[in-house]
Amino acid sequence: MYAVGVDIGGMSMKCGLVNEKGEVVDRVIVKTTLGDPYEKTIGELCDGIKELLKKNYLTPNDINGVGIGVPGAVNIKKGTVDSSANLKWYNVPLVELVTQGVGRQARITNDANAAVLGEARFGFKWKYPNVVMLTLGTGVGGGLIVDGRLYEGNEGKGAELGHITLVLDGRQCGCGRRGCAEQYASATALMRLTREAMEDHKESLMWQLCDNDINNVNGAIPFAAEKQGDPAAKQVVDEYIKYLGETILNFNNIFRPNAFILSGGVAKQGENLVNKLKDYCAKQNWGYENTPEPELLIAQLGYDSGIIGAASLYL
Amino acid sequence: MYAVGVDIGGMSMKCGLVNEKGEVVDRVIVKTTLGDPYEKTIGELCDGIKELLKKNYLTPNDINGVGIGVPGAVNIKKGTVDSSANLKWYNVPLVELVTQGVGRQARITNDANAAVLGEARFGFKWKYPNVVMLTLGTGVGGGLIVDGRLYEGNEGKGAELGHITLVLDGRQCGCGRRGCAEQYASATALMRLTREAMEDHKESLMWQLCDNDINNVNGAIPFAAEKQGDPAAKQVVDEYIKYLGETILNFNNIFRPNAFILSGGVAKQGENLVNKLKDYCAKQNWGYENTPEPELLIAQLGYDSGIIGAASLYL
Repeated sequence: MYAVGVDIGGMSMKCGLVNEKGEVVDRVIVKTTLGDPYEKTIGELCDGIKELLKKNYLTPNDINGVGIGVPGAVNIKKGTVDSSANLKWYNVPLVELVTQGVGRQARITNDANAAVLGEARFGFKWKYPNVVMLTLGTGVGGGLIVDGRLYEGNEGKGAELGHITLVLDGRQCGCGRRGCAEQYASATALMRLTREAMEDHKESLMWQLCDNDINNVNGAIPFAAEKQGDPAAKQVVDEYIKYLGETILNFNNIFRPNAFILSGGVAKQGENLVNKLKDYCAKQNWGYENTPEPELLIAQLGYDSGIIGAASLYL
Repeated sequence: MYAVGVDIGGMSMKCGLVNEKGEVVDRVIVKTTLGDPYEKTIGELCDGIKELLKKNYLTPNDINGVGIGVPGAVNIKKGTVDSSANLKWYNVPLVELVTQGVGRQARITNDANAAVLGEARFGFKWKYPNVVMLTLGTGVGGGLIVDGRLYEGNEGKGAELGHITLVLDGRQCGCGRRGCAEQYASATALMRLTREAMEDHKESLMWQLCDNDINNVNGAIPFAAEKQGDPAAKQVVDEYIKYLGETILNFNNIFRPNAFILSGGVAKQGENLVNKLKDYCAKQNWGYENTPEPELLIAQLGYDSGIIGAASLYL
């Protein structure tokens, strides 16, 4: 039994042939050209999917369906992409076009929702019935597994976990509100904190690690410098851990989940990040006394979580 | 078909005989005496339940069970009250004692979780599959209905919706964290804002409405004075609406629910409160463009929601 999973991004559309074990058996990557009309882009996606099937000696009827994860606001009932800033798509009938173009049924979900489904089901084998996943990249994405099922909310627009207030009247967010967690806990925010600290501390080791060019800053730099005892880097890391820790504590009080899964660029810090977060949250007593501590985990499936989760809609 | 629903509070334990339509057919109220050992209090509760059955010519076997809503942290699997600051109960085996004392099976849940179940099921007849309920009283309580089912989280400790950060490093909260929504959006917070405004504005109409005694302040005063055009009251109401509105927008982004239900003292403002919140949230575009607006509703069942929701565990 196979399904095709598609992870649509601003640069490329990754199509994977996924088996019932959640393994990506083969893949085709279709480049996206920003500015192309959506009909052209989706036509190329369908060609890519058909190529993927053909080179595996499969016909459309040999797969259960095509699951698609989309970066943006979807309507899962209508099968449309209502708006995707990354793709510049608005009111695009994606499901209809893919179903026609490939000759097999399709479904869509938000890309972060696809990722948490992939991780909870195939990364962690349904060990945790209630999961909050936070993707720490350009923004803060999120996904929810509630009582063993993907929670998508009205029209599939739920789980925008990066857009809850952490700082009332705080930094302007792209969503139109102010002070969203995304503005403080994303990789982008970590890089901003790092650059600010570097400007204030010309002596910081972080300059060396960037080859003295502030444009080379990435989210790994402050963690690397902090390990070597750099005080400015420690300040950056501590501040970031506080923002991310408070965000996690918020979701802990709301969901009391069995596990948090962290993914995205910042999650590459692995155990170092997890241990610092655990220390921070333990000092806050995880919000309450007498409450079960959730597991803090790093995502297992890497870049494939989106493909696998999207395919999972048909597995 | 009947069940008994119990709503335990710091002052009294309300026991209701509830039929399958969610109607409270009869009730007995048992007073609680703070400082009594829990065995005595629970013994009196069991006597009250047995009295309720007896005066309705029922035996324990004529009911499906006894559902109990408890103010505090429960463990629904073990059937224990882990901690309840209101009752001064810690690690109390409530389910075991009630099951033995009444001679019929019992279950527990958090009282705010019981209330949302009662409202969603019997107040609003399952019209809304995804519901966020906020109880605006001494604190901010909360409950979640997710895909048509009560969401309780790990051990039944989920949905502490008042304890998410609205203001990083803000006001100290009783839970140990800082800046929780409870500190800004509860009736207690509204009264604090009102008293502060009165101190600053000795000319405010709010003084008259309080008989010139600041100890008479309640949550209705600023709304009443604002209706009559009092500027200081308008400032209080606007500020409170902002806090509550931002809290609602946060949960909207997380859950994209079909409806919010507001209950507790502040919700008595009814349509006036709802309309102000809608205006505020509309200006923020409910967080995103192209997203469905949830309904903003006032709870229907009043003080009985807890009894009915608790009984609903067996209906």
